[in-house]
Amino acid sequence: MEEKIPYKIYLSEDELPKQWYNVRADMKNKPAPLLNPGTLQPLTLEDLNPIFCEELNKQELDNDTKYFDIPDEILSFYKMYRPSPLVRAYFLEKALGTPAKIYYKFEGNNTSGSHKLNSAIAQAYYAKKQGLKGVTTETGAGQWGTALSMASTYFGLDCKVFMVKCSYEQKPFRREVMRTFGASVTPSPSNTTNVGRKILEEHPGTTGSLGCAISEAVETAVSNEGYRYVLGSVLNQVLLHQTVIGQEVQTALKKYGIKPDILIGCTGGGSNLGGFATPFIGEMLRGEADYKIIAAEPASCPSFTKGKFAYDFADTGRICPLAKMYTLGSQFIPSANRAGGLRFHGMSTILSQLYHDGLFECRAVEQTEVFKAAVTFARAEGTLPAPESSHAIKIAIDEALKCKETGEAKTIVFNLSGTGYFDLVAYERYNSGTMDDVIPTDEELEKYFAMLPKVD
Amino acid sequence: MEEKIPYKIYLSEDELPKQWYNVRADMKNKPAPLLNPGTLQPLTLEDLNPIFCEELNKQELDNDTKYFDIPDEILSFYKMYRPSPLVRAYFLEKALGTPAKIYYKFEGNNTSGSHKLNSAIAQAYYAKKQGLKGVTTETGAGQWGTALSMASTYFGLDCKVFMVKCSYEQKPFRREVMRTFGASVTPSPSNTTNVGRKILEEHPGTTGSLGCAISEAVETAVSNEGYRYVLGSVLNQVLLHQTVIGQEVQTALKKYGIKPDILIGCTGGGSNLGGFATPFIGEMLRGEADYKIIAAEPASCPSFTKGKFAYDFADTGRICPLAKMYTLGSQFIPSANRAGGLRFHGMSTILSQLYHDGLFECRAVEQTEVFKAAVTFARAEGTLPAPESSHAIKIAIDEALKCKETGEAKTIVFNLSGTGYFDLVAYERYNSGTMDDVIPTDEELEKYFAMLPKVD
Repeated sequence: MEEKIPYKIYLSEDELPKQWYNVRADMKNKPAPLLNPGTLQPLTLEDLNPIFCEELNKQELDNDTKYFDIPDEILSFYKMYRPSPLVRAYFLEKALGTPAKIYYKFEGNNTSGSHKLNSAIAQAYYAKKQGLKGVTTETGAGQWGTALSMASTYFGLDCKVFMVKCSYEQKPFRREVMRTFGASVTPSPSNTTNVGRKILEEHPGTTGSLGCAISEAVETAVSNEGYRYVLGSVLNQVLLHQTVIGQEVQTALKKYGIKPDILIGCTGGGSNLGGFATPFIGEMLRGEADYKIIAAEPASCPSFTKGKFAYDFADTGRICPLAKMYTLGSQFIPSANRAGGLRFHGMSTILSQLYHDGLFECRAVEQTEVFKAAVTFARAEGTLPAPESSHAIKIAIDEALKCKETGEAKTIVFNLSGTGYFDLVAYERYNSGTMDDVIPTDEELEKYFAMLPKVD
Repeated sequence: MEEKIPYKIYLSEDELPKQWYNVRADMKNKPAPLLNPGTLQPLTLEDLNPIFCEELNKQELDNDTKYFDIPDEILSFYKMYRPSPLVRAYFLEKALGTPAKIYYKFEGNNTSGSHKLNSAIAQAYYAKKQGLKGVTTETGAGQWGTALSMASTYFGLDCKVFMVKCSYEQKPFRREVMRTFGASVTPSPSNTTNVGRKILEEHPGTTGSLGCAISEAVETAVSNEGYRYVLGSVLNQVLLHQTVIGQEVQTALKKYGIKPDILIGCTGGGSNLGGFATPFIGEMLRGEADYKIIAAEPASCPSFTKGKFAYDFADTGRICPLAKMYTLGSQFIPSANRAGGLRFHGMSTILSQLYHDGLFECRAVEQTEVFKAAVTFARAEGTLPAPESSHAIKIAIDEALKCKETGEAKTIVFNLSGTGYFDLVAYERYNSGTMDDVIPTDEELEKYFAMLPKVD
């Protein structure tokens, strides 16, 4: 082991970022605006304010302000679990026998188990500041719901989580964490909303879907005085809040004089990749540096590598705004045997534009290969990674093994966005050799592309 | 918040303890020796070597060496997850409105989820050094088995875990973590051992017991060439390895000029309390300092507060050595509705002697009160605690609330030995209001005391 660089680089609390970085301010080609699905006109604050918190809507629509000050109350909460460590993966390097220098930012060292808490606490803060009583949201795998429960209880806000019924029943542990943090968790579809009752009537015995849970959460927010709806990924505001990740990485690297060659993040809706990579992409946009940035996406839901860059609905139910993004079509539903998250058919509009403009590349990876990488990582580094994060691990290991062949000592940095303690059903499938992956064919995808709304 | 003391105190890797501290060297009244159950003579290395690793047996019997150097290979592994943070519980203090200053050492920030890894890696190292092929052990709740799996895979040792059958079936997630780290996990009783086959024959359909799993693990170790048995608590060697906890706390407190008034740890077999508290007890024994040290034990398994200080079998099956300890009787089995660990009828011989000599006090706490404290802590500090550790939280909150009444700003330090991510069945019971506690009556205990072996 090198003496100079410790196994874990912990910044001091004074080194916490004081501002969120808005990459849109540095983009020449701004992300295309969200469109009102009725009028096809760009969404305005007036459209958004009945559903989302006002201050967050300003952040959502602001393409120009480069830095937003992080309010003191949020900074104080961040100190509960931040700065998160940047880990030098000495043990993984040794296990691989690579000359590459591998680092990972570890965002899983909090009870929500992922980076989601970075935006949850910001959204809860602005809801409280607006004088609201509570927030509503949906959750699938449960990481976002857990993070929001923790953030809401901190500010004394009520938190109503609609959890897809099959997850509610199959993941009772996630549900109990949310309840322990004071959230009410309702299996969706439920009879507490009009949309839920309608679905239950038409499809008795349904196990629910994320689209349906979103609709119930939105209806509950707009029909209850003092409630707003909040969302854990995809939105510009979420990417903004998540830039504490990338900024901390920049500070830590600078402190030790480390210059990364390759940066890797997994991507579903974009909150993790956006938060980790856009501070570095900003350097590239400003001509200050050049990096090879790689997004890792699942081969079973390959939005970047197989999708179209077009306006599409953000939800299966086609009631949400239209976003210009890489999409597999709003009617595309990834194979049910996909483990964990990264199941969204679309992508953040910011990341979509940056990808279109060639700021980073993307690789699609298959599930069994991802879990193989996850187990290699776990045994070497002693941390059980989330399936989502393990997509980034897989690419990092691939790149490190290339270095082994060429003898190059490249510096690879990836984001370990979460832990896998609540994903052991998936690990069980992998350990038992019963895991596989269903990859959509080009013919299937053409079917969904044909249903894209005609906007451009 | 005070400016001077950060939320989390992280020591540097250079500040890791380089030696384990053996409190026995400072004790005037040494712990009574383990006795061979056949001869009633003190156990010798010759008795122990066929079952346990040689170097560990030397540590077990050594009452005189004050410090043992930690081998470099173990120090290197410790850097994977140590030094662990000492957290100032600012958020909990605020939630309680107390003038007390509360700190906790957080030992749950690794994938095993507890402090158990500190001894697992040491035991795996000495097994490897002895040229062994593998180790065997038993696990109930699964924390020890997980830690040993992680340690064994690091040194390329085979790891055979016997898991009590009811836990194997009810805690499939713990089992999968162990499998992910390469261990073989066998539900006990099994047909892989003589003792297992005998039990299955006599009690078909039994869900197993810890006593039975111990017997199977020991039989497997002694009947397979190149295997030894290892244990995660109670033993002197385990307390020795765990002193990295207390020594790190001492270094962190010293660095910031903090003088603790009250130190609190939970106790089942003693590994957590021993590791956390004996470095401070050493200061007391040497006349260098004075602390109020409080052990927290479950009211349903109250070894210290209701037990007898006497020689007793360490196992229900009465085949293990006799230990002089605080015991409820080897036939005492705590109520099945006890959540988590802390179920052992006896106690570490070291801690038993120290308690007998008045070096610390002990309080028994009820399960529902423990979970109430756990939820208060989780909501304030953002970490879901293990049920075991929450016994210490309960006492810490009690002491902090006393300070609120008296206006004293005492400094309270407790050990948060683990996280509760795999204990959500217990949290579910608490959240649903269906948790209770079964506390043994004095009459019941007299029955078990009457069965104590006549040795002294």
